[in-house]
Amino acid sequence: MYEILKTVNSPEDVKKLSSAQLETLAEDIRAALFNRLTKIGGHCGPNFGIVETTIAMHYVFDSPKDKFVFDVSHQSYPHKMLTGRRNGYINDDCFKEDSGYTNPEESEHDLFNIGHTSTSISLATGLAKARDLKGQKHNVIALIGDGSLSGGEALEALNFAGSELKSNLIIIVNDNQQSIAEVHGGLYYNLTKLRQSNGKAADNFFKSLGLDYIYEENGNDIQAMIKALQKVKDINHPVVLHINTQKGKGFELAEKNREAWHWCMPFDKDTGEWKITFPAESYTGLTTEYIMNKAKTDKDFVVITPAMPMTAGLSADLREKLGAQYVDTGITEEHAVAMASGIAKAEGKPLIVTNATFMQRTYDQVSQDVCINNNPVTILLNYASCVGLTDVTHLGIFAVSMFSNIPNLVVLAPTCKEEYLNMLDWSVEQKEHPVVIVMPGNAVTSRKADSDFSQINTFKVEKTGEKVAILALGDFYQKGEELAMQIEKNLGFKPTLINPRFASGLDEKLLNDLKVNHQLVITLEDGILEGGFGYKVAAFYAPSAMKVKNYGLNKEFYDRYNPDELLRKLGITSEQITEDIRKLI
Amino acid sequence: MYEILKTVNSPEDVKKLSSAQLETLAEDIRAALFNRLTKIGGHCGPNFGIVETTIAMHYVFDSPKDKFVFDVSHQSYPHKMLTGRRNGYINDDCFKEDSGYTNPEESEHDLFNIGHTSTSISLATGLAKARDLKGQKHNVIALIGDGSLSGGEALEALNFAGSELKSNLIIIVNDNQQSIAEVHGGLYYNLTKLRQSNGKAADNFFKSLGLDYIYEENGNDIQAMIKALQKVKDINHPVVLHINTQKGKGFELAEKNREAWHWCMPFDKDTGEWKITFPAESYTGLTTEYIMNKAKTDKDFVVITPAMPMTAGLSADLREKLGAQYVDTGITEEHAVAMASGIAKAEGKPLIVTNATFMQRTYDQVSQDVCINNNPVTILLNYASCVGLTDVTHLGIFAVSMFSNIPNLVVLAPTCKEEYLNMLDWSVEQKEHPVVIVMPGNAVTSRKADSDFSQINTFKVEKTGEKVAILALGDFYQKGEELAMQIEKNLGFKPTLINPRFASGLDEKLLNDLKVNHQLVITLEDGILEGGFGYKVAAFYAPSAMKVKNYGLNKEFYDRYNPDELLRKLGITSEQITEDIRKLI
Repeated sequence: MYEILKTVNSPEDVKKLSSAQLETLAEDIRAALFNRLTKIGGHCGPNFGIVETTIAMHYVFDSPKDKFVFDVSHQSYPHKMLTGRRNGYINDDCFKEDSGYTNPEESEHDLFNIGHTSTSISLATGLAKARDLKGQKHNVIALIGDGSLSGGEALEALNFAGSELKSNLIIIVNDNQQSIAEVHGGLYYNLTKLRQSNGKAADNFFKSLGLDYIYEENGNDIQAMIKALQKVKDINHPVVLHINTQKGKGFELAEKNREAWHWCMPFDKDTGEWKITFPAESYTGLTTEYIMNKAKTDKDFVVITPAMPMTAGLSADLREKLGAQYVDTGITEEHAVAMASGIAKAEGKPLIVTNATFMQRTYDQVSQDVCINNNPVTILLNYASCVGLTDVTHLGIFAVSMFSNIPNLVVLAPTCKEEYLNMLDWSVEQKEHPVVIVMPGNAVTSRKADSDFSQINTFKVEKTGEKVAILALGDFYQKGEELAMQIEKNLGFKPTLINPRFASGLDEKLLNDLKVNHQLVITLEDGILEGGFGYKVAAFYAPSAMKVKNYGLNKEFYDRYNPDELLRKLGITSEQITEDIRKLI
Repeated sequence: MYEILKTVNSPEDVKKLSSAQLETLAEDIRAALFNRLTKIGGHCGPNFGIVETTIAMHYVFDSPKDKFVFDVSHQSYPHKMLTGRRNGYINDDCFKEDSGYTNPEESEHDLFNIGHTSTSISLATGLAKARDLKGQKHNVIALIGDGSLSGGEALEALNFAGSELKSNLIIIVNDNQQSIAEVHGGLYYNLTKLRQSNGKAADNFFKSLGLDYIYEENGNDIQAMIKALQKVKDINHPVVLHINTQKGKGFELAEKNREAWHWCMPFDKDTGEWKITFPAESYTGLTTEYIMNKAKTDKDFVVITPAMPMTAGLSADLREKLGAQYVDTGITEEHAVAMASGIAKAEGKPLIVTNATFMQRTYDQVSQDVCINNNPVTILLNYASCVGLTDVTHLGIFAVSMFSNIPNLVVLAPTCKEEYLNMLDWSVEQKEHPVVIVMPGNAVTSRKADSDFSQINTFKVEKTGEKVAILALGDFYQKGEELAMQIEKNLGFKPTLINPRFASGLDEKLLNDLKVNHQLVITLEDGILEGGFGYKVAAFYAPSAMKVKNYGLNKEFYDRYNPDELLRKLGITSEQITEDIRKLI
């Protein structure tokens, strides 16, 4: 098992292998991928598809002298195995040693910690520029998937590379004819024509940007890839090496269903069944249901997901049902937001759904294209919580801090199923405000909720008490409920419990009223404190005698943490907060 | 004077004019442009160049039924004159009625308030999508300059339009062979080839994205443009109409020096001399000097300006002197930031300079490409102040709020010339932190300053006092000095005056020490309060007895305001703050 892979301690060892051994190495890598992915899950299709190319890259180039930048780096598992990190794949005790992305802390062969798309070419132009300033000579190689090409950052960089960088830069476009879901955009028709013509089709997108261009049909053939890479090694100008690969190659299920196997949970190797039981009810499921019903009854309603349909549970058959009322813009968050502004201006009802972390791309579009124009766009953020995505590159804990300080934007933080659905429908229907809604990260809970949110920044008093008021926002509302009980039990009085609902502004009247028989306000929020909700409350009371204590996450790039442990460490438990309160009052 | 223009009260009136009258209308519009621009300044070259095209657009299409979206909308003056707003150009008393950009509050012919680049195509696809959902029939027309094409948002939208929108969308690419400075990117070689071949060159960039394409050489010929637009009117799919125009057409100085006359201050029509005296010393001038000296002595130092060289005072001759140590990436803020991260990773010393408002495009790149990787990139923000750019689309008052809540990022707010230059040099030289520096918006002042900022978040006590501590950040430091004097004079004690220097974190030791003999902390900052510096201070003291009062701007889209008046209205004067303090202590 893994006999050749076990001989590879560094890329130098790859170069010593015969053709036959390289083939065995590919088999070993696939077996190692299965080992890790069946047991802990991760990015699947991208890694199976890139095995041969990665072997060829390490055979031809000399990393770390030559520099590799992997776009998204979700396809870097084979690279990790060949750069001293095979144990993270073949030894079950070592899985945790490796992140799912390139990581300079793990190896000198990894240049950047990357998890968002479309960044590799820009980063690589920077490496090349510094190399040139220093008079060094080495190859800089960016590997980017066809799906990532549609992102603005990648397109900007291609245009730049096409004329401004007149030195070595090798851009490997890994064309597996798939984004996360299917690809979207005119560019992909061009790639198709190029594949069909063995790279000779007219109106070559890359050449139109001034880039040199080479096509290699057999991206899953080690020897073909070695030859292709030898052709571009040490080239003295930017070149695109467009390669054709099969996403999921060597794993039949992933070859057949590329969308479902882009990323996976732990699974049974034989059946492909995921070893996880989903709760009967989830906020994603509720979202899917809402969308499908709404679309049926309202022809102005349109859902936009920039390449992430599954964040709204929109499988291929549901997307087809939605027809013109569904738009996958491809990986283009900026365009998606501006397009939604146009739709809203023309009295459509646009709903954008995607992961919070990817919406970081859109601060300016939300501010300028949407909010200055006050167009009623609804943006639904998945995983804007400390629960969910815990890789440092995918954190959703910055979203409320980023969005809630943009003027005109209403940021809603629902606390239960009813409130979530009511907020969603209210937002889609109203015409006064751009709205961001934070999809809860908690398990689904049920309570009565209001359905009209047009009185912006009105908080809801859920339990009236004294001395201490708890403002428990969104996902942390249930922690507020728990805390209220803990206080009553341990401190002997009933505190006031408030559901703020609005993360982007204050209910000043209510906050003033609290001064009468409260001396301390506690804020709880599921995100970083700086720039967030609690600090607004603190600043409001700062000139007064009211004390405030904010609970939330620090401004920090947490990485692969256990959410419960993290919250305990930060003192965000009913017990610890009750102790803090005891000292403060 | 303006005889034909005075007959045009709406686009309907344009359609009634003869060919000869249309030519006279163009002359009238140019005379009106001169009238406004010589007296109050504004965007010059873009408007002179687009006169004929705008007349033809209103002749052929039926605004507001047909929808026009102008990219940046800095070329919308002729459009405004033809849509009932000529008085803003020919009647000196009415200049203030019109903003320098499209503005839905002014007219139903303006769809969006726009000031950032590269948004028009996305916005237009949204208008088209809503039209299609509603089963309406009208034309949607986006007009975009060649310079704006390189921005990621525009490129994403072109790719989308090339295959996903299968209905009417007319994209007029106004190719005047110029961005603000010269254009940069491979795409521009393609445009050149297309112009030289009358649109027939191989590897057509637009066709590569699946777009239909038509070329019109005579973009400054009304009749030619009318014919060209008639060809695309009511088309049933997206089309690019690539037109060749002359930037600054009809104003000789602007034709000759396109960069200098992109935008202008009030000027003498005959000599072109600007009616303004620049101060002998400016922070921009100091920056230029620093850059030129640094580049000479340090070959690793490289300056990057995404299409805005003049924000660092880098005129064409200075750029040439800098050679490989200067990079204009074109309008590509995202790429610029990621590229800088690559340069820093490879031990170059990158300095990015541009206007704060445009860096809103880069929240995600700063967070992911730079800060997660902790690469020592320096970003210098021009106009991150309530002084300077006061158009709603160009406000710099959000920058500190946006940037200062990104982990690992050090945001520096200098208070005088010496501190500014020391911070700049310290940042470029150090290897530990990504840094944002806020270029002061004030007139240049001089004081002694430290030169080492490696002890992150150490505030500087400038005057030791009692009772009240003033934390006066960056540009508002001088207001802090004034306030300290006012307090001493009117309240009879000496307050403590602190220069925080760091906007992104707190000197907790110092803040704790203040508790001993202070009861009130005043914070002053030149930006919005929410998400900003003062709120961090308020939250720090919130559980204690220390009172805090924050002074800064509201979370609001201010538009064309007088900074002094605004600050007075917000109570940010020594007199008003002193009165507040009297009540609080």
